[in-house]
Order: sequence, then C-alpha cells, then structure tokens
Amino acid sequence: MIDALGYAAKHSFSRLKPLEFQREPAGAGEVEIAVLFCGVCHSDVHQVKNEWSNTVYPCMPGHEIVGRVTRAGDRVTRFKTGDLVGVGCMIDSCRSCPSCQAGDEQYCEGPNSWLATYNGPMLPASKATTGENIYGHDNTFGGYSDVLVVREEFVVRIPDGLDPAAAAPIQCAGVTTWSPMKHWGVTAGSKVGVIGLGGLGHMAVKLARALGAEVTVFTRSPDKEGAAQAMGATHVELEKDAKSQLEKMAATAGRFDLILSTVPEKHDINPFVVLLKRDAALVIVGALEPMAPVDNQQIAFHRRSVAGSLIGSIAEQQEVLEFCAEHGIAPDIEIIPIQEINTAFKKIESGDVRFRYVIDMASLAREKTEA
Amino acid sequence: MIDALGYAAKHSFSRLKPLEFQREPAGAGEVEIAVLFCGVCHSDVHQVKNEWSNTVYPCMPGHEIVGRVTRAGDRVTRFKTGDLVGVGCMIDSCRSCPSCQAGDEQYCEGPNSWLATYNGPMLPASKATTGENIYGHDNTFGGYSDVLVVREEFVVRIPDGLDPAAAAPIQCAGVTTWSPMKHWGVTAGSKVGVIGLGGLGHMAVKLARALGAEVTVFTRSPDKEGAAQAMGATHVELEKDAKSQLEKMAATAGRFDLILSTVPEKHDINPFVVLLKRDAALVIVGALEPMAPVDNQQIAFHRRSVAGSLIGSIAEQQEVLEFCAEHGIAPDIEIIPIQEINTAFKKIESGDVRFRYVIDMASLAREKTEA
Repeated sequence: MIDALGYAAKHSFSRLKPLEFQREPAGAGEVEIAVLFCGVCHSDVHQVKNEWSNTVYPCMPGHEIVGRVTRAGDRVTRFKTGDLVGVGCMIDSCRSCPSCQAGDEQYCEGPNSWLATYNGPMLPASKATTGENIYGHDNTFGGYSDVLVVREEFVVRIPDGLDPAAAAPIQCAGVTTWSPMKHWGVTAGSKVGVIGLGGLGHMAVKLARALGAEVTVFTRSPDKEGAAQAMGATHVELEKDAKSQLEKMAATAGRFDLILSTVPEKHDINPFVVLLKRDAALVIVGALEPMAPVDNQQIAFHRRSVAGSLIGSIAEQQEVLEFCAEHGIAPDIEIIPIQEINTAFKKIESGDVRFRYVIDMASLAREKTEA
Repeated sequence: MIDALGYAAKHSFSRLKPLEFQREPAGAGEVEIAVLFCGVCHSDVHQVKNEWSNTVYPCMPGHEIVGRVTRAGDRVTRFKTGDLVGVGCMIDSCRSCPSCQAGDEQYCEGPNSWLATYNGPMLPASKATTGENIYGHDNTFGGYSDVLVVREEFVVRIPDGLDPAAAAPIQCAGVTTWSPMKHWGVTAGSKVGVIGLGGLGHMAVKLARALGAEVTVFTRSPDKEGAAQAMGATHVELEKDAKSQLEKMAATAGRFDLILSTVPEKHDINPFVVLLKRDAALVIVGALEPMAPVDNQQIAFHRRSVAGSLIGSIAEQQEVLEFCAEHGIAPDIEIIPIQEINTAFKKIESGDVRFRYVIDMASLAREKTEA
C-alpha cells in the first residue's frame, strides 16, 4: 500500500483538514501520479457541504489534477515514469455501454455510471437498479492529495507549452465549456452568449474566442467588465440593472447560436431564452438542480431548446488541453497552498475569486515533514 | 365585399354565437374558399377564453379547415375553382426573414411574426418592436365560418383519397406532431414516447407508427389503452398509479429517442425526462406556458434537451397530408353541427372527446336560411 496524505472533510459542516490514508499501488494498466497541482472547482464546495445530497465522508475533493507519473503498472502502454499528466473528473466508467463505446464516458449508462475522481461512483450501489457496485469503491479520494493511482485510459497528457498549474482547471472548467461548444457546433462567426464569468465562464469566453466566435458575457458584476473584454468578449451585458438589461436584450433578441449558463446554482433563464436564434440551444453547464420554470411559449415559437451538458469525454479533455496549448489559452489562476483551502472555499461561495484557485501541492509536503 | 357568417365569442366569458361579418373579396394571389369542414382544436378553447392573454374579440376560431375554391383572384397559379383545399394555422408571414426564406414560416421573425388564421398577427402591433402591423389586421376570423379568403402560398391541396372531414385536423394536430418527428429524425426503429392521447397525441401515435417507430403512450386514462393499442402503440403506460408508473419507467429508463408532450397545459415533465436516451429530446408541442421546474441533473447527465416546436411549415402541412393519404391514416373524428360547438368546448375541457371534433359547415347554411 502507498501511504498518502490529503485534505478532507469529515462531515458536511466540517472544515477540510489533513487526513492520512492509503492507496492501492498501481495494478495492471494503472499509473501512480505524484500530484503537483489541483484546481479548486465550485463543485468541490457543493460536494463537501453535501449540497447535492450524495456526499460520502470523509470527502477529499479535487478533480482538476496535474502531476507526474512516478510508476507505471504492468501493461501500461501510453505513459512512463516522468510524464507530465492530467486527471479530470472521471477515473473509470463501465467501458461497455453505448455511451462508453462511443467515447462519451461522461454519459456512461453502466449500472453505477462513471467513477468520479472523488466521492465514488456517480450512481452508488444503493441507487443503482442492480444494487451492484461495479467499481468496488463506495468512496474515492481526489486530487487534494499527494498521490493518485488511475487507470491509463483516464489519464491525459499535458502538452508542452502549457503551464502545469494553469493546465489543471482546463480539465474541468475548460472541458465542461469546450464539450458543448463542440457538440452544438460553435465555429468561426458563431454568436455565443456566456452567463456568469467565474471559473467556467471565463474559460468559455477564451475558448469561444479562439474558435472565432463573437462572445457576449452576461454578468451581474460590473467590475468584471474589463476582465471580460480583456479575455475577448465583444459585448458585455450587465445583469444588475434589470431595465437596461431588458432594453439591451430586446435590441439583440434572437441573435445567439448558443448560450452557455455557467452559473453554479438555480437561476431564471427565461430572459436569456428569448435571445436565442431559431433552433438554437441554451445549455446549462453550471447548475445541477431544478431550474426556475421555463416559458414554453418562448421555446416553441422558435423551436429553441434548453439542454444540459456534463463535463466532457476523456478525448475532449485531451483535445481542449491541446487546443489551449496551440492557442496560448490558460485560465486566470491564483495559486494557493493547501493550508488556505478553507478560506478559498469561503471566497468561492461569495464569488470573490478571479477566476480559479489552484493548489500547489508542494505545500502538502511541508505538512508531511512536520507530521 | 363578401357577406359571411360564422360563430364567434364576444368576450372571454361568452358562448360562441352566430356573427354576420364581411370579408374582402380575393385580391391578386388570393383564393376564396367555401368552408366544408373545420376541426376543433384545444387551442380554440384556450383562445376563446383568453387563457393566453392575447385574444382579440370578437374571436372566431378555426384553423383546421377544408373547403372548395369558389374563386381564384388575379395571378393565382396553383388553384382553380372547384379544387379541394386546406388552410391551417397560418394565412401569411413576413416572407422575407431567414425563417420564412428557409420555408419555416411558423418561426417567422418578421415584426409581427406570422398571421394567424384567426386572432390576427402572432405579435400584434402593440407588442412588435417596431410598433407596426405589416398585415393591416388586428384581428382575423377563422374557419368557424362559411367562407375564407387566403393567399395561395398558404393554401394546401387535399390529396385524393383523404376524407375531407378527416383531413381537416391533420393540418394542426397532424402537422404539429409531424414537424418535430421529422426535425428530430424519427425513422424506422426509433423509439417514440407520446404523453397524452388527445387530438395531437393520437395523431402522433399514428404518424410515428407509419414512420416505422415503436410507440409508447403515456396516458392517465386507462380507458384509452385499447384505443392506443388499436392505433399501433406497442406499449401503453398508465400515469394514474404513480408507483407502478415509476416502476415501469425505471425498467424502460433511458430508452426513448424522442418524447412528445401533447398535453395542452402545464405539467411535470421530470418523470419523462429520465426516460430519454443520451442526446435525445423531450419536445413540448401541447402547452404554451411556463412549465414545472425541470431538474437539470437529469438533463445534463445524458446531454438531454427539453425543446418546443410550433405547428409546422406550409410545406410540412402539405407533406403530412400526402403522407396520411399514402398510408391510409386519418384522425378519429366526431362530426358535429356548429350549433353544438359550445357543448363540444366543454367536453374538450373535461377531456371527454375521442379524439377530434370536426364541424360540418353545412350546418351553418341552415342558420343562414333561417336568418
């Protein structure tokens, strides 16, 4: 067994604290990874506080991981010791359902859906139709730790030229906005709206711009206007003044090919639905909960859709990393030591982060030395 | 001017009563039609009672019309006196916006959207951004009348072999379910769910079956089970017993390529969303109002969509009439004299109709003789 150290919460109301635990050494087809950096996603906060009512404790978050391979298990073909690699939200899936066979592991239809990097299977045995747990894990410990062991199909390569710390959030915030833009066909000249300018939103803006789209940001934070423009947003609409917002929106009604909602909680999407072109979709990638009622008149009259999209496939995770390397795109990050994680969580909840915290896992080593 | 007679409501709380009025004679490009039959759509009830808050009075409904051309105006090229023709929900559109140019007049983006067969422009001047009314009508009188005058681009041909009375509802109930099935790619082997087995629902079942799809009906009326099976539904799931419903649904979870909600009012679609395959859509064609909140977790986890669709194009109206003639499909109708329209409205509201009332407009002539 590998002695490991991470930061975990023991209850929904507890702070993250150091936790010593053990990981199985790399078996056949698996690699051991020394974690260098781990992004802090808003979903980490939701999960730690059991806001989706599915948290398994102790909860050790972290699914935006960059590290270095320290050992490759038997029959590993794609990675060797020393490789700079990434791990995102998934570390396994059933690998046999139609979605997995189509390379869309994030939509795995196996009895337990996919295996999350932390918090275990998306459908735990207790909720699976079969009552089975094909992964044998009720819980998994994520990237807020010094070491990970992951099967190689769920490990990606960090391309040369990407800052390893900045590469971390691309694997969730990046791919979560990349995947729907590819699926709904964003291309040069597309008009894309982005609701919310946080971790996901700011990556959506950068990626859409690099794809050649014209991007409009909808934010309630007037102080983010400059940042949005610097990232390439052509228009910035402020949501704060409802009246001017509606007037502005009326002027642009019907113009978007795709609107992504990156807001991490329930909100009213009706003011945005009316801004979609015929046959265009508003895709919710930020919130996983019941949304406010949607007026079907505005949907039906232009054959619009409200859809959702979940992270992206492993292939898309690799693809967006390469796209970022090629186009010189990176998230705006603030590097913190893991000892500041509880403060960071509070700032994320109050929206006081620009735009992604990334934990420098070297800070964890200090703790080990002290222990 | 043409002296005309129809049935109209003067207020939201009044019964439909005979109303004498005048129509402009056919101008260039227009045809005069003697109305033979007119279907009674649930939307007629909504409109008469001002349930969408947009009714103009007097309100003379009727948009499932079959009649005979009695005169063709100048420059009419497609129709001549004696032709058996149909008119559906639309009698004009801006004819220049991208949607109209694409042959999707039902999604007209002109200042007043399309011109409805009754109740005037979809966007009246008071609600149009420009304040204009490109049609010059604040109100239009529909097919609950003896004569119509319509420009020929919005008139379709009733194919030989279709019963004229049964052809009437195909132009709304038929095309409204046909259009989304074509748009979302229903084909042989598709698995289609139909929520509600009324005027729209029963046409959806027949059309989907004729396209080669496997059809499941969701209805709260156990006494409609036999009818659904006779129409070709392979499965009939009853919504009445919530527990058995959920058990049955769990067994079929994730199996539908398309689900059409034909229920003409707000309802909870969440139990149906979970039955969609990855990338599949639930399309609402029955209700034009805010729907119950939808859980985005069930949407995002399989990249599902909730969409809406509005009637169909004129080309699709012609297409579905021909498809019905070719496949021997017709709605199940009950022919009534117009004098029974108020009773029919009550039965539609209580769900006590199988499956479409069609007014035999010969009954109106009796009234004229008496007058």
